[in-house]
Parts: sequence; structure tokens; C-alpha cells
Amino acid sequence: MGTSLRVLDQRALPAELRYLDCTRWQDVADAIRTLAVRGAPALGIAGAYGVALAAREAPIPSDGFWDAVERLASARPTAVNLSHAVNETARAAEVAGAAGADPAEAASRAAQAIHIADAERCARIAALGADLLPAGGWVLTHCHTGSLATGGEGTALGAVAEAYRRGRIEGVYACEARPLWQGARLTAWECGMLGIPCRLLVDAAAGSLLAAGRARAVLVGADRIAANGDTANKVGTYPLAVLAERHRVPFHVLAPWSSVDATLLSGSGIVVEERAAGEVLGPQAASGVEAYNPAFDVTPGALISAIVTESGVFRRPYRLHARQGEEAAGA
Amino acid sequence: MGTSLRVLDQRALPAELRYLDCTRWQDVADAIRTLAVRGAPALGIAGAYGVALAAREAPIPSDGFWDAVERLASARPTAVNLSHAVNETARAAEVAGAAGADPAEAASRAAQAIHIADAERCARIAALGADLLPAGGWVLTHCHTGSLATGGEGTALGAVAEAYRRGRIEGVYACEARPLWQGARLTAWECGMLGIPCRLLVDAAAGSLLAAGRARAVLVGADRIAANGDTANKVGTYPLAVLAERHRVPFHVLAPWSSVDATLLSGSGIVVEERAAGEVLGPQAASGVEAYNPAFDVTPGALISAIVTESGVFRRPYRLHARQGEEAAGA
Repeated sequence: MGTSLRVLDQRALPAELRYLDCTRWQDVADAIRTLAVRGAPALGIAGAYGVALAAREAPIPSDGFWDAVERLASARPTAVNLSHAVNETARAAEVAGAAGADPAEAASRAAQAIHIADAERCARIAALGADLLPAGGWVLTHCHTGSLATGGEGTALGAVAEAYRRGRIEGVYACEARPLWQGARLTAWECGMLGIPCRLLVDAAAGSLLAAGRARAVLVGADRIAANGDTANKVGTYPLAVLAERHRVPFHVLAPWSSVDATLLSGSGIVVEERAAGEVLGPQAASGVEAYNPAFDVTPGALISAIVTESGVFRRPYRLHARQGEEAAGA
Repeated sequence: MGTSLRVLDQRALPAELRYLDCTRWQDVADAIRTLAVRGAPALGIAGAYGVALAAREAPIPSDGFWDAVERLASARPTAVNLSHAVNETARAAEVAGAAGADPAEAASRAAQAIHIADAERCARIAALGADLLPAGGWVLTHCHTGSLATGGEGTALGAVAEAYRRGRIEGVYACEARPLWQGARLTAWECGMLGIPCRLLVDAAAGSLLAAGRARAVLVGADRIAANGDTANKVGTYPLAVLAERHRVPFHVLAPWSSVDATLLSGSGIVVEERAAGEVLGPQAASGVEAYNPAFDVTPGALISAIVTESGVFRRPYRLHARQGEEAAGA
């Protein structure tokens, strides 16, 4: 990393390939807050580089530096990856400063390490996920889990890319993911960049697709996974899991181990955020109508064929406390 | 009816309340072909009035008249209501002409009779459907089944309106129904007109809604019903039925008896029309991507709690040959 961070502005996709050059930490905070950057791992990586920029501007320790850290960490309140990565990078700068080393250099190295670690995690998840897929045919994915959201090629979409490179699948069906169109805008765009055949469908057509036997597996990401495997992910994930079970199609969740919240015994403890009605009520909607707009839904672990993390592949019944993770990693 | 047919242009909703005054049968054919009028019963009624207009222009019998009949009947190839109503009206004109009566007057009366009969059918379906609903709470519907599609208040939405008038329900959740937004555009608009509280959701959020116990019943229409109850309806209906069964929420199909195709033993004989990719691939979609766009899906009769027609309410296991219909009607 030089003295600026270049991020692809996801809001402009797919119409325009627009980059934001962030030369100050405030630019990074803005990019995060305005959703130019999104996806839990990408948020963490951007936040870490933001801290590295802040470390060039303000002495460490100083109120200015810690204020920047605080603002970067809270630029998206619910993103746990963001605050973890920001705080980790800030600590590296602080420790280096206390030891007489260059804090800015240490922060920069810490941010790069977070970036590289995420790319390696993605590669491992993609390889394990691709191993699970039956040879031949198409798979189905939901929302967006690709390189725009991570430091590497992504999780579920990374596995799709890896399986396609191996010649194991012919292409991917992508649900458009209303209301924010991440499937239509981002997944379809990334597939185009990677040369992977991609067919878009409205979210409501997934039942027809699975009933017709057109998808051999369903691959999705995760925002948060409870110890029993219950998984919070983009709204529409749960219906896919129910339909996949009915049609005996494997349903896999692919996510970094950091998505597992082992303190959460089940998904019933996950509070589903309701987002702004305006996301649903576009110009197509009659005026005066209200909206029900849950951002996520919770898929019971019992419907999930496998949970794929960089620590290994887990199967039902899930007991995702740290120990099960260590065993799988050691296996 | 005077000498013109006024139809509400559904394409302009909800932004604009625009009426088309059809003074010639060609105007009616255009309105049908361009989807200004849609919904199986509404198509039949419009087609019948189109024949009445044609009967004022051309002598009966004449090549001109039968050409108009042929063109009206085929303005939407798959709409069986349309060709039935057009042919019935034309026959009424022909019989009147042969008997020395005024064919145009007979056609006009036949069209009005079709219109009135549909309104009565809707009222009967709505009353039977409302009887089925539990008292209190909200219900969920999909796509559009209201007065814009029928000669009366509609089928599933008619039952919602009737139940709301009776104080039996508090309001209705409406799936937006991508790709053509009939829920967002038409159902929400009609609810606004009728003063029924309506909350829109993206189709993918129906799983969250039902899992949260927010809907006490699901009410949908039907395009075609096989003898065993298998029902073809707007894409997204089948996932709702699967989710409703999982959450023990009653799932009802409301449709005129004319939707029952007793010659069809099961839904496996229903060919699902794939519509234009452009419906899915709007400006939000990445370029170069393909689309999978089935217009309908097929819900197994085994998932349907009740099929409500003007001939009565049918329950599983369905044996919808004409005789079962007659028995229910006589009951």
C-alpha cells in the first residue's frame, strides 16, 4: 500500500466502473458509511487501511488518532468485522509506537496482513466448497458473496469460481436479491468479469428452478452462524433452504469462521434488523402503502447440508463451539 | 353499454389514472394485446364488449365480423377466458341475426351478461373465502387478483376486501411480485382505493413473514387448476405454499370454476411459459447476463388447504371433475 486506498465504488455497478481514491482516513469512513464498500470482510480490510492512513496523519498516541479509530470502527454499526480489524490495526500501531518503531508502517503492515489473510481464507473456503459440488450441471446462489465483499474471490461465489475453473460446474443461477439487487448488480457482474455463465432469476422463481431440477446445489454466504448451525443471511436464504430440502438439493453455507458466534446457542437469539421502507417502495409501488422489510432471515441448521469455513467442513448436527472448529482444522 | 368501452389502463398504474376509450373493436384488441387490460376474467369481459363493438360496424354474418372475432379471440393466445367469452358473444349475435333480431343489441346484452356473471362469481368466491379466514390478524397474498383483473372485486383480493369489511382481518401483506410488480403496482393500489391496510414485501421476505407468525392465512388466485388440485399461478406461488405448510398456515386458492381444467389429471401436464429475459434484466442487472424467467409455477394440490370457487369450497384430496363441482354447488 502506498499513501492512498483505491476502492471500487459498488454503488455505481454495474452501470459504471468507478474507483474512489481515499487519501485520508475520512475518505475511507465515508466510503464505508455510504455503502461504496460493503461485505463484512471487505469492510474490515477497508477499515484497517483507514487506520493506516490515520496513522500517517496523527501522532500515536493522540486524541486525533483514537478519534479516527473510533469513527472508522463505528462507520457501520453492526459490522463486527469492521470494528475487529480497525481495533487490531490500531493496536499494532500503538504497540509499534511504544516500542520506538514507526506506527504508520506497523499499521500499514497490519492492514496488509488482514487483507492477505482474508484472501487465503477465501481460497481455502472456495477449495473446500468446490470439493462438495457434484460434477456437471448448474448451481444456485443468492445475494452476493464474491470478491467485491472480501479480500479474495469470496465465499460462496469463490467456490462457484473454483468449481467452474475445475470444470466441475457449467454455470450459476443467481437470484436477483431484492430489494437491493446484489445478485443482479454484483454477482452477475463478477461472473461476467470471471467468464462464468450466469443466469439471473427473480427471487420468487427459485421454487420453479429447484422443482425443475435445474440446480444441483445451493451455495450461500452467512452473516452470523449460531453454535447449532442456525444461520442469519440475506432475506430469501431461508426459503431457498426449505425448497432445497424439499427437492433433495444440497444446501451449503460458506463463510469465514469469524461468522460463527459460538456464544449464540441458536438462531432464536438473532434479532432481525428491519430496514427502511424506501428500499421496497420504489416508483413501481402505489403511494400510501407501508412496507415489511427484514434485512435477513434465519435458516435452521437442520436445513443446511454443510457449513464450509476455512477451519473445515461441518455437517449436521452442528456443534460449532471452538473445539469442533479446532478438531476440523487439525483433521 | 353505450357505443364505447372505457378501460382503466393498468400499464400506467400506480403513477397515473389513465382511461382508454375504445370506440372500435380494434381499440379493444390493442388494449388486450398491449396489456392495458389483464387478468383472465377481465380479458374475457373486454373481448366480449369488443365483439359488441364489432357487431355495430359490420353486418352479421360477414367476413369482416368473423375476422374481428378471430382477432379479438387471439389477441392474447394463452387466455382461455378471452376466446370463450369472445366466441360466446359472437354466437349470441349470430343467433339473433338469424332470428331476425338486432345482432349488435344481442352482442351487447351477451357482453353485459358475461360482465355481471363475473361480478356475481367474484362476490360468491369472496364470501366463501372470507368465511375461511381466522378472525383477527393479517393475511398474505401474492400478485394481483382484484377488481382490475375481473368484472367484480376479484378472487383472492375480493376475499381480503370482504373479510376486512366484516372486521375479520386487520390488513393484508402483499408480495411485490417481481418481475412485473403486480403486487406493488396493482394490489397495493387497489387496497389504497378500498382503504384496506396493506404492507408490501419483497417476494424473498415471505419466509421471514410466515416464520414470524405475521400472516394467519395465504390467499392466492389461479391461472389453471388440474383435477387433482395442482395449481398453476404466478411465479412465487409455489414457494409460498411450501413455506405456509411448514409453518402450518392455511394456504387457499381462490378462482372461478372456469380455471379448473378437469381434463388435466395433474399439474405435470402444465407447460410453464418462459417469458422474455428483458422482464428480469432491467437497468439494475449487469450486462451480458442471461435470465431464467418462468411466468408461472405449479403448486401441488397436497399443499393447498382449500380451493374456493363460485361452485363451492373444495378440500384435499381434490377430485375436481365436473361431478364434484356439481355436488358442491348443489350442497
